Amino acid sequence: MLLYNAPDPAPNPRRVRLFLAEKGLDIPMRDLAIVEREQKAPDFLAKNPAGQLPALELDDGTVIAESVSICRYLEALHPDPPLFGSSPEEMARIDMWLRRVENMLMVPVGMVWIHSHPFTAGLGRQFTDFGEASKERVAKAKAWFDGQLDGSDYLAGERYSMADIMLLTTVDFALWIGLDMPEDAGNLRDWHDRVSTRESVQRA
Amino acid sequence: MLLYNAPDPAPNPRRVRLFLAEKGLDIPMRDLAIVEREQKAPDFLAKNPAGQLPALELDDGTVIAESVSICRYLEALHPDPPLFGSSPEEMARIDMWLRRVENMLMVPVGMVWIHSHPFTAGLGRQFTDFGEASKERVAKAKAWFDGQLDGSDYLAGERYSMADIMLLTTVDFALWIGLDMPEDAGNLRDWHDRVSTRESVQRA
Repeated sequence: MLLYNAPDPAPNPRRVRLFLAEKGLDIPMRDLAIVEREQKAPDFLAKNPAGQLPALELDDGTVIAESVSICRYLEALHPDPPLFGSSPEEMARIDMWLRRVENMLMVPVGMVWIHSHPFTAGLGRQFTDFGEASKERVAKAKAWFDGQLDGSDYLAGERYSMADIMLLTTVDFALWIGLDMPEDAGNLRDWHDRVSTRESVQRA
Repeated sequence: MLLYNAPDPAPNPRRVRLFLAEKGLDIPMRDLAIVEREQKAPDFLAKNPAGQLPALELDDGTVIAESVSICRYLEALHPDPPLFGSSPEEMARIDMWLRRVENMLMVPVGMVWIHSHPFTAGLGRQFTDFGEASKERVAKAKAWFDGQLDGSDYLAGERYSMADIMLLTTVDFALWIGLDMPEDAGNLRDWHDRVSTRESVQRA
């Protein structure tokens, strides 16, 4: 098994590294340089035609792309501790929160990144008005998650899950591109402190 | 169990209806009127604070939102025929294709819908240049999926799966908002004919 990785601040590979650290798993990794577009080079496109990282190559040559799909695969091989849930209800709830983070928060964070960040200005046409407006959507989404975290230690229930990994990597990437945590989002800030001090964060 | 549903052309509730039809399951449904914003009314927000459809209410009052999460829950209760895969590899592959459809195709289709369609003009500020540019991204994504379908009857392998349901509901919603299937996308067109003639499509 070989994990094609990219170092921070790329949020998607970090999801897999956090997942591995939470599971206590060690997988050989190879870093590709996103700034040099190595993930778009022909030899990597032959492995993942979507040209994205991370990707997990199995010993028989099969390649699983998409951060969450890689984690699901590893969860099936190494069920403990469960990070996608155990009962049908818990699995559905964690998946629901995963999707909410991606659709309500990661999508607008990505739009800010693509359309209003200087770093991506050379990669394609930027619609800067839209990028600026997406910052408001990010702030609204953070306020919504702040409300949802009221009274909860973790996003999808009483224990740490893949949904927390998704929210942490999204919020930290947002911070890296200049989208601060709202001052009044006390629940979200407390949650962020709680999950950021886990040993996995130091290891990943 | 009660499924809060919205009729066509809403793509997300249709995913669940197609899934139910493929499984041969029958669940009581209640339609909400999206045009009247019933999904944003306080009594529904108490069930799904994200204010989105579909949502599945269990007999104990638990609510599972998010189309794919609802389907995962039902798959756990009714494994046959498997639509999320059986082996770890197949489950990961189907999940990977699900995510690719959502991230590469559904996101830009949604941006066209939100930012350049007359129907949504009153719901928020439209960035019409961005909406128009998103049409090009949709066309590119369709061309990519067309290439990936070369030699395959179904998106994620040899059998019909949730990934096909995701692609079908996305492509059909795109058609409804005026984004035609490219003339030269022969594989995608053949696939669309193949999955559109399934009995589930008539029943859902």
